[in-house]
Amino acid sequence: MEVIGVIDTMFAIVNMGEFAREELKTCPGYGEKFEIVSETVPGFKDLAVGAKKLIEERKAKIVIALGMPGKESIDQVCAHEASQGIMLAQLLTSTHILEVFVHQNESNDPKEFLQICEQRAKKHARNAYWLLYDKDQLKNRAGMGIRQGFGDVGPLKV
Amino acid sequence: MEVIGVIDTMFAIVNMGEFAREELKTCPGYGEKFEIVSETVPGFKDLAVGAKKLIEERKAKIVIALGMPGKESIDQVCAHEASQGIMLAQLLTSTHILEVFVHQNESNDPKEFLQICEQRAKKHARNAYWLLYDKDQLKNRAGMGIRQGFGDVGPLKV
Amino acid sequence: MEVIGVIDTMFAIVNMGEFAREELKTCPGYGEKFEIVSETVPGFKDLAVGAKKLIEERKAKIVIALGMPGKESIDQVCAHEASQGIMLAQLLTSTHILEVFVHQNESNDPKEFLQICEQRAKKHARNAYWLLYDKDQLKNRAGMGIRQGFGDVGPLKV
Amino acid sequence: MEVIGVIDTMFAIVNMGEFAREELKTCPGYGEKFEIVSETVPGFKDLAVGAKKLIEERKAKIVIALGMPGKESIDQVCAHEASQGIMLAQLLTSTHILEVFVHQNESNDPKEFLQICEQRAKKHARNAYWLLYDKDQLKNRAGMGIRQGFGDVGPLKV
Amino acid sequence: MEVIGVIDTMFAIVNMGEFAREELKTCPGYGEKFEIVSETVPGFKDLAVGAKKLIEERKAKIVIALGMPGKESIDQVCAHEASQGIMLAQLLTSTHILEVFVHQNESNDPKEFLQICEQRAKKHARNAYWLLYDKDQLKNRAGMGIRQGFGDVGPLKV
Repeated sequence: MEVIGVIDTMFAIVNMGEFAREELKTCPGYGEKFEIVSETVPGFKDLAVGAKKLIEERKAKIVIALGMPGKESIDQVCAHEASQGIMLAQLLTSTHILEVFVHQNESNDPKEFLQICEQRAKKHARNAYWLLYDKDQLKNRAGMGIRQGFGDVGPLKV
Repeated sequence: MEVIGVIDTMFAIVNMGEFAREELKTCPGYGEKFEIVSETVPGFKDLAVGAKKLIEERKAKIVIALGMPGKESIDQVCAHEASQGIMLAQLLTSTHILEVFVHQNESNDPKEFLQICEQRAKKHARNAYWLLYDKDQLKNRAGMGIRQGFGDVGPLKV
Repeated sequence: MEVIGVIDTMFAIVNMGEFAREELKTCPGYGEKFEIVSETVPGFKDLAVGAKKLIEERKAKIVIALGMPGKESIDQVCAHEASQGIMLAQLLTSTHILEVFVHQNESNDPKEFLQICEQRAKKHARNAYWLLYDKDQLKNRAGMGIRQGFGDVGPLKV
Repeated sequence: MEVIGVIDTMFAIVNMGEFAREELKTCPGYGEKFEIVSETVPGFKDLAVGAKKLIEERKAKIVIALGMPGKESIDQVCAHEASQGIMLAQLLTSTHILEVFVHQNESNDPKEFLQICEQRAKKHARNAYWLLYDKDQLKNRAGMGIRQGFGDVGPLKV
Repeated sequence: MEVIGVIDTMFAIVNMGEFAREELKTCPGYGEKFEIVSETVPGFKDLAVGAKKLIEERKAKIVIALGMPGKESIDQVCAHEASQGIMLAQLLTSTHILEVFVHQNESNDPKEFLQICEQRAKKHARNAYWLLYDKDQLKNRAGMGIRQGFGDVGPLKV
């Protein structure tokens, strides 16, 4: 059975990995074609090497990496470093790692914030599935202004 | 037959990959000397590893990577990360990946914006063709102030 | 016996490595399952390669890298470079290196500052232990707003 | 015969590569000990991989990479990315690639601007020659405040 | 005999490499256990690959890389790129390269500026020696607020 990796953090204030798993369990072939292997690391700067280990040691074909940058300006620098690490991990393994970051300043309303987390995690879990098993879903949406966490923007109207 | 890769995103609000393909189909040897292999990924931070996979798994000799950074300041950081990834993917594969980014703030006029997308995608598709099959076209334009998406600046007048 | 690496700097004004070792010595299996190998380097930009050498030459399974950026703006740039190096060292070795940085401007009160150093170093030493020998401790805290150096934030309340 | 690579861009508004070649042709051993191989790429973000290919595929012992960042703030970000790429290309090949960038905002006077281009390209072409064939020239100038494109600053006077 | 590499630039306005060599010559084992191999490159962005070549081609066990960023804001960006390169060179070779940068704006008084250069170069030359042959000197100073170029800060007083 193929493996989809899900990696998240103790730092986040929402269990984003659980949302990703919920979505993956609704995808065709779950438990037959693919299974989920999960890890949790301390913070988002630990995601990159954790994802790389899922790929190398657990044979994950793709990884969903979920993190939550804080509100301080130093957090933005750390988020940048975490992102660069995830980028590099992808290139060293030639494997997609979908970065699912929700910044704590994206909403001050707890309900809306939770919804952003859920939607972004689920949409990217679906994207991971498409990248592995159904690429036409992606191709059919090329240039369509698709978003995760907020509503789609849609294509340019001329 | 050799392969030219075209990779674009669902995030963009214009189907930039289609413009690149249109141009490539007008190049000498299309369908005989080279064919096009296309991919679509969720967002522009997924382009780098996607392009690397086109090179490694689909034997692309060159890749045109098309993305569209949003208007927010966080989008500029992401664009920087996406660009660094594309740079690294090139260096790890010793293969050109032409980065074709149109920033959403380059024009507020939808018609002009669409034109920038079309021109930049087509010009870089032509550049990709030249890099593979007709390098003298590039050499003859060294230092000539050539642009993509807007008109050429031309060489310095002293 | 497996090795946990601890690396710190002469630049720091607190002996952070000692706090990390204190915590590791209270972990189950210390001296039986794992031992500690320590190094000290001049400054935090020397941590990355030092940690990599602990992994390669001393067979460390995980490393705790402790540093202390100064208060000047140039120190922030250096901290960024040091962090990128630690990120890269992790990815080149597929081994976790926990970055434990206390910025000198986190508190002006010496007692509080010392406490931050102690708590952050000890919490991350514990995290290192968990990553090696008790991953469920991490999984059970996914999305729980766990912090090091200050009190936990806790999960989002909706 | 050994190869010195010269790579420049269509984007630049001055033919900087030609200045580099002019200088190299005046160096001892031109056409006997070494020859010049030239490439032109679309923009300066294409220089890094182009230089790496000159080293790997054309066996260049050293490369002179000439580019011209534009005046906009986005151009500064791109220049940074281009420079990081050239740095990485050097480290992956253990070969010097001399980055010769003239920023379009270095002078508003076309004549002076052209002179900067010429001087910087020629001085770095000479540096490339020295790095390959006459290292004492460099050693004798250690700490002497040598510049390219503007006059030398000279050593500190105490 | 083992090799310690010293690499500096023509750009600097002080011969920093000479200070480093002076210090190394006072270290136990000079000329018996270790010798010095020196290189000079044009500017500080050439130090990284130059240091890597000293390690690979001249078998240097450690390198001292000395550079001097200018006063302009563009120089700060270049210094950042140079530092990232030195970081990467270390990680690709698993060898320490001590970055010894004196920024031209650290002092406007030529005598003080020269003193900073001398002290920083010599202290780091000593650090290089300790890293190779006497690691306890470093361990005994962990968390002691050691500086190079200015006086030591000393450990936190609580």
